[in-house]
Amino acid sequence: MKRFIVMIVMLGVSGAFFCQTKPGSAKVAPNGQSIPEGFENWRLIAPSMRSDNNTIRAVLGNDAAIEAARTGRTNPWPDGAIMAKLVWKARFHEAWATATIPGDFVHVEFMEKNSKRLAQTGGWGFSRWLGKELKPYGKDADFAKECFGCHTPRKSSDYVFTFPAVIP
Amino acid sequence: MKRFIVMIVMLGVSGAFFCQTKPGSAKVAPNGQSIPEGFENWRLIAPSMRSDNNTIRAVLGNDAAIEAARTGRTNPWPDGAIMAKLVWKARFHEAWATATIPGDFVHVEFMEKNSKRLAQTGGWGFSRWLGKELKPYGKDADFAKECFGCHTPRKSSDYVFTFPAVIP
Repeated sequence: MKRFIVMIVMLGVSGAFFCQTKPGSAKVAPNGQSIPEGFENWRLIAPSMRSDNNTIRAVLGNDAAIEAARTGRTNPWPDGAIMAKLVWKARFHEAWATATIPGDFVHVEFMEKNSKRLAQTGGWGFSRWLGKELKPYGKDADFAKECFGCHTPRKSSDYVFTFPAVIP
Repeated sequence: MKRFIVMIVMLGVSGAFFCQTKPGSAKVAPNGQSIPEGFENWRLIAPSMRSDNNTIRAVLGNDAAIEAARTGRTNPWPDGAIMAKLVWKARFHEAWATATIPGDFVHVEFMEKNSKRLAQTGGWGFSRWLGKELKPYGKDADFAKECFGCHTPRKSSDYVFTFPAVIP
């Protein structure tokens, strides 16, 4: 019996170890969006930089987004496409003075396309996850209005700022 | 007989159509390096920017490089790791004046680690492929000395400038 209990405890401990999930993976944003699994392994759409807030960025896409980006079908983007914008504070490279590289991780933002379910916000679901802990941004579901407001001037480009980079 | 010839011609035409390969995929650099297949689908190590030549970049890695980058085993990088640095001319975003984004594709560079075979250049094989046509750079094998010369000051970091970005 004792050996049986020890085995159960060991199984529990190893289970807890192997079932560790990504920070934030079980979290839900105030508008119901959650973090797409495996986004850190998505492929590149384009890097970018912003001098107004001194950040450097990379936009990645899930398979549907990459297929659309690389075949020029991005106006509109297809339902099912999700983009992840990873944002870091920009810093200078200590061994190359004119190079700017990622410093601290700031946040990751997602745009998920579903033209029917998300019609009220241009067919896109927005979410933002702060810091390495991926803490959901926004006090209530209205936070997505802030995202959508910023993206509205890009209506003629299906509300997306990112142009897929040329990748041979 | 005529029908047979027509069939052969059609097979030839369709074969040529389906056998189209990536530009540069059959090319070899003057030092014998070739373009790693599927690099455009590799995962992100870090974006960067250089103000001295007004370019924006993304460094991607093959599976061995990504595993090393994401587990902190990058000094030295393991044999088999390959990094691809994609470089674009930087341009301003027409709808966001303080944002810099990729313009024309400039080149892609590879660093491939093999500590024994490539010991003469710090364990790394270098190559650079110009423009969308991915034209091999360098007149003779000595071109890699230029690459290695630039990377030599980074000897204490296994000759690599790139720091993997924090990706939660």
